[in-house]
Amino acid sequence: MKRYEKYADDIAELIRSGILAPGARVPSVRYASQAHGISPSTVFQAYYLLERRGLIRARPRSGYFVNPSVLVQPAQTLREPQVSESTDVDVSELVFSVLDSIKDPNTVPFGSAFPSPLLFPLQRLSRSLASASRDMDPHMVVTDMSPGHPQLRRQIALRYLVSGTMLPMEELLITNGALEALNLCLQAVTEPGDLVAIEAPAFYACLQVLERLKLKAVEIAVHPHDGIDLGILEQTLERYPVKAVWCMTSFQNPSGALMPEARKRQLVELLREHQVPLIEDDVYAELYYGPHAPKPAKAFDTDGLVMHCGSFAKSLAPGYRIGWVAAGRYAQKIERLKLMTSLCASMPAQAAIADYLEHGGYDRHLRKLRYALEDQQRVMLAAIGRYFPAQTRVSQPVGGYFLWVELPDSVDSLQVFKVALAQGISIAPGPIFSPTQRFANCIRLNYGSPWNDAAEKAMETLGRIIRSMLSN
Amino acid sequence: MKRYEKYADDIAELIRSGILAPGARVPSVRYASQAHGISPSTVFQAYYLLERRGLIRARPRSGYFVNPSVLVQPAQTLREPQVSESTDVDVSELVFSVLDSIKDPNTVPFGSAFPSPLLFPLQRLSRSLASASRDMDPHMVVTDMSPGHPQLRRQIALRYLVSGTMLPMEELLITNGALEALNLCLQAVTEPGDLVAIEAPAFYACLQVLERLKLKAVEIAVHPHDGIDLGILEQTLERYPVKAVWCMTSFQNPSGALMPEARKRQLVELLREHQVPLIEDDVYAELYYGPHAPKPAKAFDTDGLVMHCGSFAKSLAPGYRIGWVAAGRYAQKIERLKLMTSLCASMPAQAAIADYLEHGGYDRHLRKLRYALEDQQRVMLAAIGRYFPAQTRVSQPVGGYFLWVELPDSVDSLQVFKVALAQGISIAPGPIFSPTQRFANCIRLNYGSPWNDAAEKAMETLGRIIRSMLSN
Repeated sequence: MKRYEKYADDIAELIRSGILAPGARVPSVRYASQAHGISPSTVFQAYYLLERRGLIRARPRSGYFVNPSVLVQPAQTLREPQVSESTDVDVSELVFSVLDSIKDPNTVPFGSAFPSPLLFPLQRLSRSLASASRDMDPHMVVTDMSPGHPQLRRQIALRYLVSGTMLPMEELLITNGALEALNLCLQAVTEPGDLVAIEAPAFYACLQVLERLKLKAVEIAVHPHDGIDLGILEQTLERYPVKAVWCMTSFQNPSGALMPEARKRQLVELLREHQVPLIEDDVYAELYYGPHAPKPAKAFDTDGLVMHCGSFAKSLAPGYRIGWVAAGRYAQKIERLKLMTSLCASMPAQAAIADYLEHGGYDRHLRKLRYALEDQQRVMLAAIGRYFPAQTRVSQPVGGYFLWVELPDSVDSLQVFKVALAQGISIAPGPIFSPTQRFANCIRLNYGSPWNDAAEKAMETLGRIIRSMLSN
Repeated sequence: MKRYEKYADDIAELIRSGILAPGARVPSVRYASQAHGISPSTVFQAYYLLERRGLIRARPRSGYFVNPSVLVQPAQTLREPQVSESTDVDVSELVFSVLDSIKDPNTVPFGSAFPSPLLFPLQRLSRSLASASRDMDPHMVVTDMSPGHPQLRRQIALRYLVSGTMLPMEELLITNGALEALNLCLQAVTEPGDLVAIEAPAFYACLQVLERLKLKAVEIAVHPHDGIDLGILEQTLERYPVKAVWCMTSFQNPSGALMPEARKRQLVELLREHQVPLIEDDVYAELYYGPHAPKPAKAFDTDGLVMHCGSFAKSLAPGYRIGWVAAGRYAQKIERLKLMTSLCASMPAQAAIADYLEHGGYDRHLRKLRYALEDQQRVMLAAIGRYFPAQTRVSQPVGGYFLWVELPDSVDSLQVFKVALAQGISIAPGPIFSPTQRFANCIRLNYGSPWNDAAEKAMETLGRIIRSMLSN
């Protein structure tokens, strides 16, 4: 990281934490240069960068100021956390009807699950693909298939190491995206009819996997700021024979919640006491806006009970379908399940990503991607402030690319979904994130695409649709 | 196909059908040239080709003669076909211990499931990979994922069409190899505890999939010449609540059996009467030695009951993990299961194969591959004749790359497996092909690698090991 980037990050952190309030003046170039022993041009470069990131703006002849923050309430989607009853999962039809309907590439993709592919280094990746496949040992394609491409596994283990998690290579299995990893994990520790603790709201694919494997769910409330309610989880573990906990510990989909490290540590400890495995879905891990990568719960796992699932789909190469799992004590069982299910992940894609991780500049790409996403969040939050009803509450996640928006109680998000889709705008309605179809007044908005006029207009239209549904 | 190739194929067919017997003189160049109205040099080219394929040889000054065939009995592994009892499947541990032990690349790979990668056009494929990924629409990687790459699906539909099977594009779903397709098919039509009719012997992955999905199996005898016993299947369908039939209709693994078209038609008819779906595993479809591709049972399916699974893993690109299923009336259900399991197959691999199918010369490659395999079969059969005990029986399949060898009753194939492995030779022992671990005296040998001294020595060693186990 360059000097000016470091300084820009320091300032960004002051803004994020509220020490530099909206509207406040940032240190003058002269002051900053002297105080930090850096050249004025370095300070300027940092401020240009922060300007591009949408965090500050210049006022002619008076210096730089923190941008006014958006005038929305923090989301409080969870009013009365309580222990849920277990429930069968049968939400697929609804999810599929939503997913089917938003496939049209001309739709404004606020309902999408992916960031825009324009944010990914696809040309550079395709060079890696060409060179890796040229050099591929022909025998590799038939031998040594099962745990995955050796270089790729080494590169992934290295990234764990750098971010502070020691991981033996033997734990790592490459999969067809994180979705397959999550499927395998769940299958490794459950039988049909078993009970799994999930988040409320939960990523809809989690619900679909439970349904496919004929598992029952018990919903644990998620606080938009710090993740699942550990008190409720504890009560649930005491009351029910929970066979696994499925949890997105960082930038939870859809709420955006990030569990602080201390709470992740508590979670691991709680599950260790009950000897219940944790399936940690951590596909947004790399999309943090703060200065450091948040550690996963896996980092605190001493018992091999945590199965940590990651992916390159959200941060580098969605269509390559390369994910992985570090499965602790379940590693061998999962490798065998994988062998019975789909043998191994596509070799050219694995080789390409291995090559890219080694030579392509992944960290540089990630830094740009994070800036872009943080900037786009700011713009979308501002648009919500402008166009949505005043009672709207919205999460303000410090990573990922989803906003979880709680609309006034009288608004039916499935209705919003239908009307908006007819006008070429997709959103993800709240009920697809719950087996009991809660969150009727919530929507998830994707800000993973570069902002443009169409997006601005779509937000205005959405706001109009929502206002029209307010009971007067 | 060139004129000389056509003529060579005609002669090969005469040899295969026995009209030109071993040792017989093939038509002289002058005679053939006049009789068929082709130039002498075309006839010579054809005979050179047949010589390279190991079918004929020249005797100085007397012309070309059909090679002496190998002196082995046709395999008759099925002595008393009978209706089986249903059984739980629990063979995984044995299969895994066998698979694990043969991973060493220095082992002579007679136990392998794949042909040698040296027979595949990997360099040409890697050019396709480079050019396809360069031209890939970035949006394709996030939209339109589910059924698969449109060009690839079109190319596959075209191949069905050319070989005489009309297939609507909508039926086709691209999967992570045929193994995933087979998993999805089975899951689409069964619940845990259900009964599935499988072949005896059956491909061990089939047994593993049944085990994983907690299904029961009923074994239907396979005749090494014409496939599963339809009489027994009919009795089984009448006696048991069979939910699906899993069947490799062409070049069955491990027996090599090819069901004649008339019997495939009967099979489809029988299942139509009972309204039981057929999962047709047809991954060796392209590896036929005869003049025409055998039609799949799918070609006779009028009811949408046949789920036809194919793959490029055995004929073009194993490590790419691209397979497909044409799933008839179950297409939508399977597409949804796929979405819940692994979203979609790796896009670069799909795009590369689509490009290769269009521009790479797949049919030319397949012709070479078939010649090579047929030649290698002949050599391995001859080695069995030389080194194995006289009572050995062996299949002589007209496609694929497996020999199913029935050793004298007193020989324990698991013992052969262990002793051979210690000497650096892998084989696939019979019991891994049956949930009831029958076929104790059978082994499957892979002749999918170019023959060399090591292979010849390994056959000699194998013969010695087997002879040492004969009871005297």
